[in-house]
Amino acid sequence: MTDLHRLSASEIVRQIQAGKITAEAVVAAHIERIAQREPQVQAWAHFDAEAALAQARAVDKRGASGLLLAGAPVGVKDVIDTGDMPTQYNSAIYRGFRPKADASCVALVKRAGGIILGKTVTTEFASRMPGPTRNPHNLAHTPGGSSSGSGAAVADFMTPLGFGTQTGGSTIRPAAYCGVVGYKPSFGTINGAGMKHLAESLDTIGVMARSVEDCALLVHALTSRPLPDFSAKQARAPRIGFCRTSRWDQASAATQGLLEQTAATLAKKGAEVRDFTLPEGFDRLYDTQRLIADFEAARALAWEYDNHPQLLSEHMRTTLPKSILIPREDYAEAMQHARSSRARFADAFAGFDVLLTPSAPDEAPPGIERTGDSLFNRNWTLLGLPCVTIPAGCGAKGLPLGVQFVGAYDDDARVLQCADWAASALR
Amino acid sequence: MTDLHRLSASEIVRQIQAGKITAEAVVAAHIERIAQREPQVQAWAHFDAEAALAQARAVDKRGASGLLLAGAPVGVKDVIDTGDMPTQYNSAIYRGFRPKADASCVALVKRAGGIILGKTVTTEFASRMPGPTRNPHNLAHTPGGSSSGSGAAVADFMTPLGFGTQTGGSTIRPAAYCGVVGYKPSFGTINGAGMKHLAESLDTIGVMARSVEDCALLVHALTSRPLPDFSAKQARAPRIGFCRTSRWDQASAATQGLLEQTAATLAKKGAEVRDFTLPEGFDRLYDTQRLIADFEAARALAWEYDNHPQLLSEHMRTTLPKSILIPREDYAEAMQHARSSRARFADAFAGFDVLLTPSAPDEAPPGIERTGDSLFNRNWTLLGLPCVTIPAGCGAKGLPLGVQFVGAYDDDARVLQCADWAASALR
Repeated sequence: MTDLHRLSASEIVRQIQAGKITAEAVVAAHIERIAQREPQVQAWAHFDAEAALAQARAVDKRGASGLLLAGAPVGVKDVIDTGDMPTQYNSAIYRGFRPKADASCVALVKRAGGIILGKTVTTEFASRMPGPTRNPHNLAHTPGGSSSGSGAAVADFMTPLGFGTQTGGSTIRPAAYCGVVGYKPSFGTINGAGMKHLAESLDTIGVMARSVEDCALLVHALTSRPLPDFSAKQARAPRIGFCRTSRWDQASAATQGLLEQTAATLAKKGAEVRDFTLPEGFDRLYDTQRLIADFEAARALAWEYDNHPQLLSEHMRTTLPKSILIPREDYAEAMQHARSSRARFADAFAGFDVLLTPSAPDEAPPGIERTGDSLFNRNWTLLGLPCVTIPAGCGAKGLPLGVQFVGAYDDDARVLQCADWAASALR
Repeated sequence: MTDLHRLSASEIVRQIQAGKITAEAVVAAHIERIAQREPQVQAWAHFDAEAALAQARAVDKRGASGLLLAGAPVGVKDVIDTGDMPTQYNSAIYRGFRPKADASCVALVKRAGGIILGKTVTTEFASRMPGPTRNPHNLAHTPGGSSSGSGAAVADFMTPLGFGTQTGGSTIRPAAYCGVVGYKPSFGTINGAGMKHLAESLDTIGVMARSVEDCALLVHALTSRPLPDFSAKQARAPRIGFCRTSRWDQASAATQGLLEQTAATLAKKGAEVRDFTLPEGFDRLYDTQRLIADFEAARALAWEYDNHPQLLSEHMRTTLPKSILIPREDYAEAMQHARSSRARFADAFAGFDVLLTPSAPDEAPPGIERTGDSLFNRNWTLLGLPCVTIPAGCGAKGLPLGVQFVGAYDDDARVLQCADWAASALR
């Protein structure tokens, strides 16, 4: 029983439904793990063992039949509202704040029999200023951000499932830094009602787990997207575009080497791997994403800035008043650039199943004052494309490195299948 | 001084900035008007005269210089959060609920010196079940919905400006029924942070006023969109596409007659008016919009359904569990249809400045149990296009009829200019 916290969510659900274990035992095992590890890792913004156990007992009592997430614990990034737990956005402005209602994704987890284990640490409003969370692989390093707590908690076996959000690279990067699977679905996949918006055109709820299958299960339960058939033999070798991107020279030697080696290994295992170059003009997407995020954040956080400037981080306090001055014309042009790039990507991508590209520039940098760079994420976020990172190696200091798969808009099942196939192939 | 409640917002701002009147006097005049009319019209979900006066005095004290909305009262639809007023979404679940923070648009109104006069009645969660509001032109008739209170309050001189939202036809229809100007901007124009979502892919914050200029002023202040130059002589005759739509036979004789006559009048005044037929396949948009709205609402309101089913309207209680069963494939296909239709509309529309089309099937129907049909709105909402309704005539029972102008995505300035030109031409 002591190893229940090491089970995948899919396995937990299967065993509970088979009557082999109880949700209460599963949650108890995770509580024990959290008690051991949380003092070092600090992944949780709110955790109440008794409340989690009560949820688990309720699931056991009503029976797991038909519940897609029966007894599976989920950590919820603290920019997603919970009606029965504090929700503080890692901002002193919201200290002790408890929303009235659950966000859509939280209510749907509960409906499916999942257990909301607690709230995981976010950077301030899912922007830059980090929380106290540390990378469980090396406590001197950042877990990445902004979904810092979910990445660390999933990696450290404190929960099998976690919610993140991504506006730039806030799900994929911490997942890669922490050595877990991160999945940012196509824009709009998971209903965003009840998420604290930073930049509504970009904010995407994502998920983390220790397997592709678990990520897919959670999204399936929330969105009715069909669960990809991971047991099926690939109908044909996946056609992989190896996309180094124009920022390749900002990837570390370890990252470059890992990607080259991954491309070679997957080719050897039967994939059709060809180089893929993004269309002309796509290099601007990095700046376009920033401009859109800044323009929208200055409006989304207008109340906070006007009423509690002294409780904002210095970064926010200096950025928001600059960003409100971005000319509308520049924003409109950036949005138009994003729309036309989405259409052009679809054409350029024809003939490929997925792209293979770095998840982050390197392993997690030292220190927890910064959470790393979204350089290999924010272009894909802006394009709205499904992204999956899987752990695939180690950096110079022995911390995890991920490789990222990116697919066509709304073709999430194929990206998940390819990522799962690659995870097996790389083993 | 007694007629201050009849001034436009633009005039209020001009006179306050010129030192001719005070914000306090403006608000006092509106308070008096509300005291007279509210018992009959019931446009307000929350109104606190003292709090409104306090806001006005604060604006007078700090001075109106540079404030785009100095002293202009704004009614806020009660699906938009206010941190210092109750926000109840016309649902018993949220009786007495007060959010922590203002929505983005509310905070930005205050920043620009505007006065949040109170919260205006919405249907339940901006869906179907109406509130108590009556049409000020005939109390036996609906004001339309879901932005019922804003439409009635603006029409009845209780506020010069009001916020609505539109997921189907919830800004344009009540504006038309109440004989005021309604403006649903291009999707994403007004930041939606802090709006209670019904269907996040469709929900659009809109505005109402008694002139096109006032609508444009409010949106300008919030979004930095340049204010169209309404004083400029039209550089050339507007090229108007007369779009009867495939639902023309569901428009009343009065509506059909008004549209034909408007087209003729505008042509006589110099516009180039040609018939415009929507591309093939666009007839499906009416159903597509419904499917998307239902699919998303069932998820957005999951917490409400699971925790307080008995406090939902019967309509909600029966609809949400059906809508959660809509297959994801159908939703994905509907979203794809919407995206491709947006692209195709842009092509078909080339060579036109605006479309002229009905605002609603007819004048406001009798009774307040229903708020009318979104038949002439929900296709445009789904396409994300800017829409402006202006009052243009009367129906068989003497209630207001509007005509609607629709433009290209993000070409809001042109639609506003054409609508303003048409309003003058029809006078």
